[in-house]
Amino acid sequence: MNNVKAFCFDVFGTVVDWRNGVAREAEYFFLKHGLTDIDPYEFADAWRSLYQPSMQACRSGERPFTRLDVLHRENLETVLANYKLDVSAMDANELETLCSAWHRLDPWPDVISGLTRLKQKYIIAPASNGNIALMVNMAKRAHLPWDLILGAEVTQAYKPAPQAYIRMADILAVAPSAICMVAAHNDDLRGARECGLRTAFVPRPTEHGFGQTKDLAAASDWDIIALDFNDLAEQAGC
Amino acid sequence: MNNVKAFCFDVFGTVVDWRNGVAREAEYFFLKHGLTDIDPYEFADAWRSLYQPSMQACRSGERPFTRLDVLHRENLETVLANYKLDVSAMDANELETLCSAWHRLDPWPDVISGLTRLKQKYIIAPASNGNIALMVNMAKRAHLPWDLILGAEVTQAYKPAPQAYIRMADILAVAPSAICMVAAHNDDLRGARECGLRTAFVPRPTEHGFGQTKDLAAASDWDIIALDFNDLAEQAGC
Repeated sequence: MNNVKAFCFDVFGTVVDWRNGVAREAEYFFLKHGLTDIDPYEFADAWRSLYQPSMQACRSGERPFTRLDVLHRENLETVLANYKLDVSAMDANELETLCSAWHRLDPWPDVISGLTRLKQKYIIAPASNGNIALMVNMAKRAHLPWDLILGAEVTQAYKPAPQAYIRMADILAVAPSAICMVAAHNDDLRGARECGLRTAFVPRPTEHGFGQTKDLAAASDWDIIALDFNDLAEQAGC
Repeated sequence: MNNVKAFCFDVFGTVVDWRNGVAREAEYFFLKHGLTDIDPYEFADAWRSLYQPSMQACRSGERPFTRLDVLHRENLETVLANYKLDVSAMDANELETLCSAWHRLDPWPDVISGLTRLKQKYIIAPASNGNIALMVNMAKRAHLPWDLILGAEVTQAYKPAPQAYIRMADILAVAPSAICMVAAHNDDLRGARECGLRTAFVPRPTEHGFGQTKDLAAASDWDIIALDFNDLAEQAGC
């Protein structure tokens, strides 16, 4: 890890708790509309389940690169319709506010201290499928101390497409091995390793709630396997 | 200015003192090669004078968008050749080090405190013609507290091309009038105003040395005319 210059982070799940953050805003939205029979956690899961398929259309070339804010809005309308709700009768501003719940997610408790330590020695940046406005609004609200925003809108590619990783190295003008990708998702690290990046796994065992079965542990010999972001900073010599 | 969400900054001249920064590294390079008859300030000016023409080729479409690090390197070879030096006999790594002097420029004395105050209330970002790696390396070395890196490589356009300003607003998902462009150069602010951005002028009367004749004062009724970055923060309510 001696040559690493930058740590780049998956965000949804790894840095922030999207499920609780989305559910609390969905709960407020449903209460306001008298829809008290909808479980906001199930709703958050249903919304999130459309995330990968919607990006896949961009990855495959079926549609041009499209910002995640746009995909989130389309997916919101789909999931509301799946709940048999009449989206066309809903106020556009209220839908936009609900959609921007993804901009107002809270970091896991170890994130700020761990990132602050890493920032002393390394470039730190989100390498998220989220777009720039989403990432910067989230960072301002949650005080995430990024040096810059990288990710899908900058690379014009959605992880785990190879270009999403390779172009980060090109943009930072470093070798792929000078970047360490940090994620709570083994698939993301597999994609990064295939492109020559270093890899660090940090488990987030309640990302999907208490019944989570996926990504509970490292599935490979990643360069770093850390307990949390403080341990990651420790292992990175900070 | 009530609706402003982001302050975006010209960098070379406005945030950092490029002339002294480049001259000090050029002086070291020339000393090492026994070239004590070259004035490093004249050399810095000569190198910088090729900056606008080289970007113009990209603005006009004559060549595709090219990172400033590449243009700086081409211009370095041109200016060395203009001094009748044999570039082909020089060590490639030494040339690269000299070229990256643009990554190691110092901010004017008021910059860090002013930016730190502005960052409490606003998104702050460089809107420079410099590429991302150049901007992030400069920021890490000088502790510039940017929220994100914007500018030519993100917008794929060189100021004062309208797309360089308009795409920043699009990327931040705000109206152009929600961005205040800050520059020590009246031309840059003219370009920003034409695209609907707010404008702030901060004079840097020694950017070009003590004989400077250009941009000594605001040439129009810019939204803010500040003494320095601390005064800018004050006037912006920080």
